Amino acid sequence: MTKVFFDVASSLDNFIAPEGMEMEHMNDPEYKQWGAQWGKLTSWLFKQKIFRENLRLGEGGETGMDNQLLEDTFSRTGVSVMGKRMFDAGEKSWPEDAPFHTPVFVITHLEREPWKRLGGTTFYFVNDGIDSALSQARKAAGSRDVRISGGANVIQQYLNAGLVDEFTVHYSPVFFGHGTPLFSGIRKDLNTKIKKAIPSSQVTHVSYEVVK
Amino acid sequence: MTKVFFDVASSLDNFIAPEGMEMEHMNDPEYKQWGAQWGKLTSWLFKQKIFRENLRLGEGGETGMDNQLLEDTFSRTGVSVMGKRMFDAGEKSWPEDAPFHTPVFVITHLEREPWKRLGGTTFYFVNDGIDSALSQARKAAGSRDVRISGGANVIQQYLNAGLVDEFTVHYSPVFFGHGTPLFSGIRKDLNTKIKKAIPSSQVTHVSYEVVK
Repeated sequence: MTKVFFDVASSLDNFIAPEGMEMEHMNDPEYKQWGAQWGKLTSWLFKQKIFRENLRLGEGGETGMDNQLLEDTFSRTGVSVMGKRMFDAGEKSWPEDAPFHTPVFVITHLEREPWKRLGGTTFYFVNDGIDSALSQARKAAGSRDVRISGGANVIQQYLNAGLVDEFTVHYSPVFFGHGTPLFSGIRKDLNTKIKKAIPSSQVTHVSYEVVK
Repeated sequence: MTKVFFDVASSLDNFIAPEGMEMEHMNDPEYKQWGAQWGKLTSWLFKQKIFRENLRLGEGGETGMDNQLLEDTFSRTGVSVMGKRMFDAGEKSWPEDAPFHTPVFVITHLEREPWKRLGGTTFYFVNDGIDSALSQARKAAGSRDVRISGGANVIQQYLNAGLVDEFTVHYSPVFFGHGTPLFSGIRKDLNTKIKKAIPSSQVTHVSYEVVK
């Protein structure tokens, strides 16, 4: 049975992106020091073997428990769903063989033909909302799961629609002060329970199940 | 060497109190369902032996790892510091032998004589700000530590002033949607690292160290 999940890194103050990390400042990581802040949130990630391989960042990398968790997430993902802004940022930074290697459904108002990349990633552009995107994603996922990749607004929409089964938050020891909140306006009647918490020296991984 | 710390429970969306949980609605837990939401945040706490004993909630209670953590926190605390609103709420709800059993410094604009309770708790009312309160607290703490009890605004002031050495967040699997944010406007140059993360079935305990 296909599950719908998301898996994100959060600052201690509930941000998934620091202030200043916007499209118009992508080439200026000094702007409000967004590059340094982003680096603190994701430093553990950039050390992991599978992450380095997927983004063509170079050989080597850690192969411990943090890496294993990322591998498990990658393996279970049959399809990703993302918002337009996340796609726009990625389009500029992913390697030619984009790091998904599955179909990806992009929720957008723009009409565009499917965009096929090397290595098995094809982006499909969905113009009729989150339900339609998820329904198409489920069909394409086969026996694997559907990952809501982000951004925060798309995650919040799926959570509040009651469409998320599980989610993982990687709590990084950094404060952003301002930025894009991960959880904002989430329904308080959404019941969750802890599925698994995994301590690590760099980040705390906690998986939750949405109780339906 | 006396350490300054805080230790709080947080919802997944970074709130330490649900909307509606204000002085004027203290006797109406149905208001915006604040009572039920608060209950979800703290259900693990109310089951613990030391918490039940301290608040005179009755015999028994869990004696496992969650309880041990609370006992450790209680034992290390030589003094508590809190804001006026937290005191006002507690004044109405604490038992006659208030649950601190140490000196407590209340930051307030109101002048008031020290208020001595049964069991060793004396409340001192400090009118000249957070630095003065902490300096008095350090003197009174002896070889033990100073706990910044809350509320959120007082915690944020001490964090941003660089006066906190360590803190623990207990992440409870509940969403509040709206309420009092735990971390708001925290300085992004505050460096922290994970000291210890302890998984539990009901709540995830993570302790952080502020790197100075």
